[in-house]
Amino acid sequence: MIAGLDVMATQLDSAVNAAQRIGELLGVISFAASGALLAVRKNLDIFGMAVLACSTALGGGVIRDLLIGRTPPAAFTDLTYLCASLLTALVIFFKHPSRRLTRGPLEVFDAIGLGLFCVTGTAVAYAQGVGAPTAALLGMVTAIGGGVIRDVLGGEVPRVLRPDQELYAVPALFGAAATATLLHFDTYWAWTGLLAAGLAIGFRLLARRYGWHAPQARRDTGRLDRSPD
Amino acid sequence: MIAGLDVMATQLDSAVNAAQRIGELLGVISFAASGALLAVRKNLDIFGMAVLACSTALGGGVIRDLLIGRTPPAAFTDLTYLCASLLTALVIFFKHPSRRLTRGPLEVFDAIGLGLFCVTGTAVAYAQGVGAPTAALLGMVTAIGGGVIRDVLGGEVPRVLRPDQELYAVPALFGAAATATLLHFDTYWAWTGLLAAGLAIGFRLLARRYGWHAPQARRDTGRLDRSPD
Amino acid sequence: MIAGLDVMATQLDSAVNAAQRIGELLGVISFAASGALLAVRKNLDIFGMAVLACSTALGGGVIRDLLIGRTPPAAFTDLTYLCASLLTALVIFFKHPSRRLTRGPLEVFDAIGLGLFCVTGTAVAYAQGVGAPTAALLGMVTAIGGGVIRDVLGGEVPRVLRPDQELYAVPALFGAAATATLLHFDTYWAWTGLLAAGLAIGFRLLARRYGWHAPQARRDTGRLDRSPD
Repeated sequence: MIAGLDVMATQLDSAVNAAQRIGELLGVISFAASGALLAVRKNLDIFGMAVLACSTALGGGVIRDLLIGRTPPAAFTDLTYLCASLLTALVIFFKHPSRRLTRGPLEVFDAIGLGLFCVTGTAVAYAQGVGAPTAALLGMVTAIGGGVIRDVLGGEVPRVLRPDQELYAVPALFGAAATATLLHFDTYWAWTGLLAAGLAIGFRLLARRYGWHAPQARRDTGRLDRSPD
Repeated sequence: MIAGLDVMATQLDSAVNAAQRIGELLGVISFAASGALLAVRKNLDIFGMAVLACSTALGGGVIRDLLIGRTPPAAFTDLTYLCASLLTALVIFFKHPSRRLTRGPLEVFDAIGLGLFCVTGTAVAYAQGVGAPTAALLGMVTAIGGGVIRDVLGGEVPRVLRPDQELYAVPALFGAAATATLLHFDTYWAWTGLLAAGLAIGFRLLARRYGWHAPQARRDTGRLDRSPD
Repeated sequence: MIAGLDVMATQLDSAVNAAQRIGELLGVISFAASGALLAVRKNLDIFGMAVLACSTALGGGVIRDLLIGRTPPAAFTDLTYLCASLLTALVIFFKHPSRRLTRGPLEVFDAIGLGLFCVTGTAVAYAQGVGAPTAALLGMVTAIGGGVIRDVLGGEVPRVLRPDQELYAVPALFGAAATATLLHFDTYWAWTGLLAAGLAIGFRLLARRYGWHAPQARRDTGRLDRSPD
């Protein structure tokens, strides 16, 4: 583990490090955009929009940092991510689609953030010295966490749970597991990481495009009501 | 404190340790079942079910581990608990009561998890060297936390708050306080811990069976609406 | 930073320390009152009320302590805060306005808690050795966190997001930034801290009184529905 960590640290000083940082930043911006678009749909004001964008963009990483004991979390010490989130919210405030058309872009940004974060989250956790399976789990939590915070704060059932939402947790798990495998076999480079992120994003977007649904538990009746009592 | 910790550590190497672990595993399985049953009621698909079952089963322990500074939390390093949760979700997926009849089993599993977690949660916190009152509080949070996560993610008001729910926090507090007392007087053995858990579970189930309700704040009007504005 | 920390530590042993503690206690009581009043409005029973009051009063501080790595959080080791929250809930249980009139007092208590916590939260974080901007962010999270927990558990969209709520995050950010500035220039004394808290509270209350609203994103249609799909 320690040896793997050294290798990792060396790798992270090189091109991987830059790619990793760019990936994190793009993930933050994508999730901030998805949060800001939900804020548009919910008619929030500019400050509510900023809070929701930042919670979405930084929430997953903060949870991951708490879980690996990195305090204070990077989002509070490196203000780049916060500024990127705020800027994104500002751009969306002035430039956004008609409210009824926010759904599509929201899902695309969410998918991009999901794919990037499951890769970078896994790599950050692994670099802290945890085992590959733990790193994959933490990466998955990083990827899913921000979206759950966004949906709960916005008063919606989280996307990761909704049956009308095509596969969501599976692409995140796939990307995180792929990254953990790459890290374990010392083959996590800029392009392999990017490939894993791209595959996860593509998986999620294809699931949406073609409506790949997971099976639901057998229903006893034909009734469609959501909350029976 | 340190002396007490040593005694604790010695105890935990023995039969108590095994009982503790079995108790935790049974608590995880019970909470996973309650999460999976809520997923059935909400018509979630198999992955939403797995996510809700794991969040419920592991959430309380993860919060406790964060609060006592044990990072990464046990749920991420010891994958037994995760596998047990996933297996439970899979079993419930194929074998569950009719949706309108999920409520009863959900409550029973929730009560079993509540009773087991308030005991094991208190013991784990105490073994980390905190004082008995702090350990009892942390145990109560462990027991209540998973259910709160389940209910918030599922879009319900948490059971611990609902007035139509018979006493919920009180059995958890009772079990946690009893365990802290046992630990403080070095009388926490396998059977005393089991007894405390059994009493907490019985307390909760009896409260449900006989509709023991706590008093509500005086109402000024006879109106029954829940959210006046 | 270390030098600043020493200065801080010396200051905190003196009058500032007492003022800081009184401010925290008053903040806890105010937030507990706001949580208990929401519980009255939601018809919760006495235990639900106690849980909601404690979550609101202690939640923000617990999140801050987790973020700065202070485990277990103060709320679990120094039981003064818990007892103050429970006493407040008990007082509100017996003595509260008619349910339809809870809204006004709830907002006033919330504003007092918000103003006090953004100051004390920033000071606690700064005393742990983080930089001034990080301390301000952590103070803002402390101030906002408890209210978000209260609103999410109570099944409402958090006040910090709601557009019908006059400026909320801005007074908290203002108070936290002012405190961080005071701390940075070694001018954080009992009266300057109190002034910052008073200004933040006054800012929030004036925003409410005079209906200062932040701009919302341009609406394409005149439709007022909140959740279009």
